Order: sequence, then structure tokens, then C-alpha cells
Amino acid sequence: MTQTPASPPARKERKRRSGGRAGNAERRGGAAIEQMPWRQIVNRDRPTEPMPPEGVERMHNAAMHILEEIGIEFLNEEAADILRKAGCTVNGENVRMGREMVMEYVAKAPKQFTITPRNPDREITIGGGHIAFGNVSSPPNYWDLEIGKKVSGTREQCQNLLKLTQYFNCIHFAGGYPVEPVDVHASVRHLDVLYDKLTLTDKAMHAYSLGAERVDDVMEMVRIAGGLSHEEFEATPRMYTNINSTSPLKHDHPMMDGWMRLARRGQALVVTPFTLAGAMAPVTMAGAVAQSLAEGLAAIVLAQIIRPGVPCVIGTFTSNVDMKSGAPAFGTPEYMRATQMTGQMARYYGLPMRSSGVCAANVPDGQAMWETEHSLWASIQSGTNMVYHAAGWLEGGLIASPEKFVMDCEVLGQMQRYMDPEIWDTSDTSLALDTIEEVGPYGHFFGCQHTQDRYTTAFHQPFVSDWKNYEAWEAAGGVWTAERAHHIYKRIIAEYEPPAMDDAIREELASFVERRKREGGAPTDF
Amino acid sequence: MTQTPASPPARKERKRRSGGRAGNAERRGGAAIEQMPWRQIVNRDRPTEPMPPEGVERMHNAAMHILEEIGIEFLNEEAADILRKAGCTVNGENVRMGREMVMEYVAKAPKQFTITPRNPDREITIGGGHIAFGNVSSPPNYWDLEIGKKVSGTREQCQNLLKLTQYFNCIHFAGGYPVEPVDVHASVRHLDVLYDKLTLTDKAMHAYSLGAERVDDVMEMVRIAGGLSHEEFEATPRMYTNINSTSPLKHDHPMMDGWMRLARRGQALVVTPFTLAGAMAPVTMAGAVAQSLAEGLAAIVLAQIIRPGVPCVIGTFTSNVDMKSGAPAFGTPEYMRATQMTGQMARYYGLPMRSSGVCAANVPDGQAMWETEHSLWASIQSGTNMVYHAAGWLEGGLIASPEKFVMDCEVLGQMQRYMDPEIWDTSDTSLALDTIEEVGPYGHFFGCQHTQDRYTTAFHQPFVSDWKNYEAWEAAGGVWTAERAHHIYKRIIAEYEPPAMDDAIREELASFVERRKREGGAPTDF
Repeated sequence: MTQTPASPPARKERKRRSGGRAGNAERRGGAAIEQMPWRQIVNRDRPTEPMPPEGVERMHNAAMHILEEIGIEFLNEEAADILRKAGCTVNGENVRMGREMVMEYVAKAPKQFTITPRNPDREITIGGGHIAFGNVSSPPNYWDLEIGKKVSGTREQCQNLLKLTQYFNCIHFAGGYPVEPVDVHASVRHLDVLYDKLTLTDKAMHAYSLGAERVDDVMEMVRIAGGLSHEEFEATPRMYTNINSTSPLKHDHPMMDGWMRLARRGQALVVTPFTLAGAMAPVTMAGAVAQSLAEGLAAIVLAQIIRPGVPCVIGTFTSNVDMKSGAPAFGTPEYMRATQMTGQMARYYGLPMRSSGVCAANVPDGQAMWETEHSLWASIQSGTNMVYHAAGWLEGGLIASPEKFVMDCEVLGQMQRYMDPEIWDTSDTSLALDTIEEVGPYGHFFGCQHTQDRYTTAFHQPFVSDWKNYEAWEAAGGVWTAERAHHIYKRIIAEYEPPAMDDAIREELASFVERRKREGGAPTDF
Repeated sequence: MTQTPASPPARKERKRRSGGRAGNAERRGGAAIEQMPWRQIVNRDRPTEPMPPEGVERMHNAAMHILEEIGIEFLNEEAADILRKAGCTVNGENVRMGREMVMEYVAKAPKQFTITPRNPDREITIGGGHIAFGNVSSPPNYWDLEIGKKVSGTREQCQNLLKLTQYFNCIHFAGGYPVEPVDVHASVRHLDVLYDKLTLTDKAMHAYSLGAERVDDVMEMVRIAGGLSHEEFEATPRMYTNINSTSPLKHDHPMMDGWMRLARRGQALVVTPFTLAGAMAPVTMAGAVAQSLAEGLAAIVLAQIIRPGVPCVIGTFTSNVDMKSGAPAFGTPEYMRATQMTGQMARYYGLPMRSSGVCAANVPDGQAMWETEHSLWASIQSGTNMVYHAAGWLEGGLIASPEKFVMDCEVLGQMQRYMDPEIWDTSDTSLALDTIEEVGPYGHFFGCQHTQDRYTTAFHQPFVSDWKNYEAWEAAGGVWTAERAHHIYKRIIAEYEPPAMDDAIREELASFVERRKREGGAPTDF
């Protein structure tokens, strides 16, 4: 850590604060960061359910009314054709479907399924009480404390954020690109980034539904990385895609194309309408959620027609805009309730659910943390199974930040420990009546055997939080959270070791990338 | 706002970040801060309950075992004598009581009650789903961005924090001193601060149980400020006290003396054991909670013997220590679950509950917000009725900060809006199916009538959060949250107007203070 050169702004900031030795502030974690072991946690808490049962029925009827009477536009002839043949009423791009048909097909989707990446030990379960967290996906821009300003994403920044994604055990899957490497041409970007994702991480990952070539290339690379036959690849989900409807009420061509390609090959499908209340959806949360549900269910019906039983996840991204400026807001009270309302409906339809860890803040400061906390707690309270963008997101998803990534992982570690039933165990040894009697009114519990037997494991150990008193904190440099996170990020990258990969597989991946580049990669005219 | 001179560190910090015009960053709120109106919100969510029913029974039995077999030390002869006469087994200072007696007396405490301050419009209800938030209480030290370091509290700082307490509608009661005015001698401090509290605020307040004179002086000043006869004062709670047991298993003399004095006069009583797991309580949460319950219930039994039906609140302050340093930690996963477990037991005993908004962070940064968020969400999830220290707390309660106060009030406003059932209303106008049809797949909701009718009230409007995009935020000075909060704090103090008070009452208060000072105030040898 002490080798890490402090960034110029960081040094100046530290100087302004105390003229002290910030490096020391990181020593408490020891040479490597202490973190919880890899495991997928189960959320046993009863979800928070704002809507009464009749509200759930009214919400269902509203979503069904949209599907039956208003319809969803499918800007993809093949998709519209499949839906028409299955019994939908299709007028041009407008597709309407009856509630019996919707419920029949939605019921074919599994309540729970697994995604098995190239390292089977990283398999994740989606559904039931299981909750999995993924890294920030798709910001075109990057910010860190050293650069000190918003810049376009690069492949190196993307690689560093992928290293954080792999490093932190509280992150269960690798979503989309943690930052768009704008320095790589769009025609071959998916090839380079997937090569990086598959070699730098061994966690479950994602294909953007942005054209046939990209989708097929990514599926092929995931298959190669897993050392799988085509049959093995299609036997169970090895990856997933996430599509966004073009709200209001539309599914566009490339998204539907990718959706159908993954459906045919039995991979996992997540649909997340981007329904900002007051902009692409009604200003009232109930209306925005109803529209979001209708858009999502329409895509799930299509998937279940194509391959009955293919895993589908209903996502929510319903938030509100700043009615003064039209700017999107995230982690608001309305956002939290919309997420919980969607959770009630996901359980009503028997579908796993996806939500997000998001904020509108531009830098990793207090606002960034309270907005992200609100969205993450809403995810947990809603019974969400997949939490997208759980680490590293700033500026409504336009910026990825490694400091924010590290700070979010601190919060995610605490939230995952929070779900550990050991904390509320009421066995005799936990109630510790003998110890209370032994210590008595004039003793101290620090030295007693009951404490000595447990003190290393009794409490969650944070790695960014600084629990020193003010004087010790000041003596250690008086370093604020974002700068401590910056030093931790630097140390992780410096110490990073990629997960094992068979040389033959690495070469096969590399030659696939090389060949596809020779062929010109993917068209960029979509 | 633009008149407010930026503090030197703030100016330097802003310069470092952008050289821009931070003042503008505050303009979006307009000349005055937009905030929700004064109202006490009802928390309708089902509490989060980690313990299964058998766990609740085991916890109850453990608390009863402590009261029956181990006993609580009452370092107050009068209290021990009252308990002995009521049937407890008293050996010296050790008091043991049977569970039948405990349950009989605890059942006399009301499930819900009100506290009516000098302004009856500020009456708060404690119990049921009602939740009330109070300011930070009792830090000996102060920090703000302008001073830039930890300093001893002063009366002026205390007055400024009282102005914030009165200004923010999300704060429902004034707890103890928001910072200890160390520049006022301890013998007369209660007189000066209570004069400030009663003239600068009109919200419900608190007396420290630190000796007969202080307690009686505060009750008399609250009576005078309310323009009440002694009978009127005693007819219903006009104020409250909070005592902390001296864990493990002790109630000290001054705390018990104040407790009994308020009980006799029918004022509200809050008991909050300070049970840090691994230090003053077992390292296991179940043991720490069981001990905390036993200590709290013992004091409540005493109050119900003295005046059956006097309002009592059971508090929790159970947290864990950093087992590496022994430093207290706050807002941890263990803290959150201990708070929820206590909530389950408070409902079991039919008692209103108190918890806190706390953190270990030394400055108002990211860590301060995630730790405080965790403790505040635990309060809401536990069904807490009184949330102490909800705004302004740093360094485990050793520092009060106006920036943290403003940032916490932003969060509290959002949490109170979060409890507004309007958000999840599913009436036809909220489901807005006609609007969805009207706007259609190629329209936008911003301009439609349904949005126009609601856009000013549809969403909670924050006052510290900056929702501008990065470029606009940077152009406005690139100001981080803590500095924005600093400017808001300065503006509130500059614009502050105290609540109305009858001149005769103010003069009566002033002459009471003057007389009691002449008499020497309170002894300081406790």
C-alpha cells in the first residue's frame, strides 16, 4: 500500500486536510483486504409489501388491460409473426394478447434456475430467496480520484473494473461492460471485451442484444471458455442477456433478435423496461409499474412460445425524473416503493426479479451513498434475485468509478453479512446467560472465555470503513472515504491475479477473436 | 446564499475541484429550502423480524432468567427500597424480581401516548406505527467544514444546532443538548441551554437525569414555557427523560433519581441500556439483547410501581465493538439485527421503542452516510417509535456536525416521504390506463395532462441532493455533498426566525434562570 503513489488531487486533498500520512490509513486492513469468502447468500426476510392484496389484483388487471386493449409494439417482424401464430392479435407492429394466454405462457417460466459460468464453483442460483449482485454495466464514461474528471471509457479502465468484479466476493456475476471501452471500435469491441471478461474473471456473464453477430460471437466465446460442446452449452444456462424495452410500449429489433437467439439456446433472459415516471411512463408509480410489467411480460410470453421453460427474469428500472429539469433521479422514495411493488408482482407471476443499485450523484460522496443505499435496500426489501449495477455506478449510469465500486462493495459485504442467520441465533451459547452471570455487574466481557472463543468471527470486518477515533484517524492522515477507497482500488489492481484458465482454451478464444476480427466483426449500422 | 462567505477550507476545496462558483450549487433550492410540511408520519410497513416465534420466547425467557436469578444492581437506596416493598428480593444493591411481577407491572405501561410541548401543534404520538425523529444529543465536541477540526462544544454552536432542530420539519423532537456547551459551567449549563431550547424551539424536549436540581429545574422551565399550572403539567406528558443503565446490570444513583422524579410527575420515561457486545455485554447479539432487555425492564417495573400507567419506552443501543481495537462500531449488520430483535421484543412486551441514527465515521463522508443509513433503516424496519440522534451525529457520538445534520435531514425527509401511502396508491387515476393509451408508443408523458396536473407534487423534492448531470454540476462548482450541506446550514442560520413566545413567559423563564444562577445552580460533585 505504501508503495502506491498518492494521486496529485489525492495528495493535495490530504494535505489540505491534515498534511498527514494517508498511506497509513490503509494499513488496518493488512497487506491484503480482509473480505468474506465467496458464497451466494439467501435473503430470509419477509419482503416489504406496500400494496394490499386488492392493490396487487388491481395492478395485475391494469397490466393485463395494457396487453389486451392497448398492446405492445414489436419492431421485429419475426417476433410479431411468432406471436401472431401463437394467437396474439397483430396489427402491423402492434401486438395484443389475452390474459389467459399471458398467464399460460408466463407459468411455463421456472421460479428458480442456475447460471453456470466457466468455473462451476461460481454457479449462481436465481430465484426463491437467493440474491446475486453484479457490477455496474455500460457507462460510456469513467471517473476516478486520480484523473479527477469525467472521461470517455477505455479498454484499460474496463479491464481494471473487471479485475474488481472478479476480486470482490460480494460480486456474484459480471454484467455488461463495467465501462464502455470507447477506444475499441464498436465492430470488434464485443470480441476484445469478452476476451478480457472471460480471461480476467470466471463469474457468470452477459451478452448485449445488439445484433446477431455480437450475440452469436458471445455465446460461442462463453461456450469455448467453458470447454463445452454445443449440446452442453444449451443443456443449462451458461450466461444471460438483459434487454430494455423502448418505453413506452415498444420492443426494438436488435433487442428482440438477441432475446430470441438466447431463448432458442436455453440461456437466461432478463427484460428490464426503462420506465421513468413522468417521461416514458405515467407520473404516478402505479401507472409506471403497470406499464413496466406489461412490457416485460410481453417479452417473456415470446420467450416461452419459442422455448417453453426457458429461464426468464422480470426486471424493474422504474424511477422518477426531476420535474424541474427532466433529469432522471435514482434511489428516491418513489423508486424504492416502485421496486417493492414490482417485487409483489414478480411473486404474483412466479418470476425471479431483477433490480439495481443506482444513484444520480456525480462523485462518490455522501449523496452517492444514500441514493445507492436506498436502491440496494429496496432490492433486498423487494425480494430481488439479481441486483444489477450494484457496484461502481455514478451519474445515473453515465459514469463508472473504481472508488464508488470499492465503497459499494463495502456496503454489499455488510448487507450480505446482514442476511447471515448466525447474527440472530438464540441458542443457549448465543444467549450466554452463564457468561452474563460469570462477568457480573462489575466485570467486563472483553476478556471472558465466551468472547475469546468468538472475537475473530463474531462481527463483520469492514475494509473501507475507518473505526478509529478522530485523533487516531487524523494522525493517520485524516483521509475521507473516497480517497481510502482509491488506495484500496490501486492496491487490488497492483496485486491482481487472474483466475486459472487452460492454455488451450485461452488460445482457442484468442484465435476465435483473431478470426472474427479478420472477418470484420459485427456491423455497426444498427 | 451568494452572500454567504465560503469558508477557507471550503474555498480551497472548491478551487481544487474546479475553480468554479459553488454558490450556484445551492440555487436550485430557491431562496429558501423546499421541505416537507411539519407532520408526524405513520410507518405502515410490516416490521422485519429475524427471530422466529420460538426465538422470541427464548429471548423472553433469557431476559426473565437475568431478572429472576442474576438480578440488576440499583445504586440508589430509595429505588431498591421501593422495589423491595413491591415484592422484589433485594440483597444490598442487587435486586431480583419474578417474571409474574415483571409482566404484571410492564403491562401497566401504555402502548401509546403523547408528548405535548409548549406549542401544542408540535405534539408527538409515541407508540403504534407512529415514528418520531430527534436531533443528535450530548456530543462533547463539534466539527464543521469551516473550522475543519474537532473542537470542544460552545453555547453558540449548541444554539445553531438547536436552530437546525427547529427549522427542519423532519425533526419531531429536541433530544438532549445537540452539543455540550463546555464554555458554560456545569452547575448552570442546564439553565442556559434549556432557556435556549425553550426559546429557539417549540418541539418536545428532554431533561438529563443528572441530579435532583437539574431535573426539577428543567421540569419547572418546561412548565413555565407551556404556561401551565402544576396540575396541567402533571396531567399528561409535556417532556421526557432518557436514562442509560450502567451496563452490565446496573442502574446508577442520579439516573434512578431523575427517573423517579419524572415518574412521580407523569412525564415520559425512556430507558436505553448501553450494551456494546463484547464489552459491556456478551459478544453474541442474542446475549447482548437479552441483557439490554433485562436492564430496561427492571427500570420500567420501578416506574410502574411508583406511578402505574406512566409512559415508558424501551430503548436499544446494542452494537458491537471493533474486536481489533475495542472501538465501538455503529450501523453494522449486527447492530441492525439487534435493533430488529429488540423491536420484536418491544412488541412482545407491548412497549413503545426507541433506537438511534448513528455512525462511527469522523467526518460527513460516504462512510458516515452508509453507517447512518443502516442504523436509520434498522429503526424503521424494527418498528421503532422514537429515533434518537437522527441528525448530526459523528464519531460514535463524540462529535456533532451541522453538515452531517443537514445531510441526515435530507435522508430523513426521503424516509418520511417513503412512508407516504400516496406513492403506492392503485386507484384508477394512479394506474392511469387512459393516459398510457393516450400517449401511446410514440408519445412522451412529460406534456400530457395527467403529468401536468401532478408534476409539482408527484415526487419528493430533495434539498441537498444535486441531480444535475456531471457537466452542469461541474459548471456550478463541482461541489461535493458535505460542502453543499455546509452552505445550506449557513443559509438556515442566517435566515433563522425563532418560534413565537409570549413576552411574559420569556421574562418568567429568564428570571427563573437568573434566580437559580444566584442560588448557585446545581451541584457538580456527582
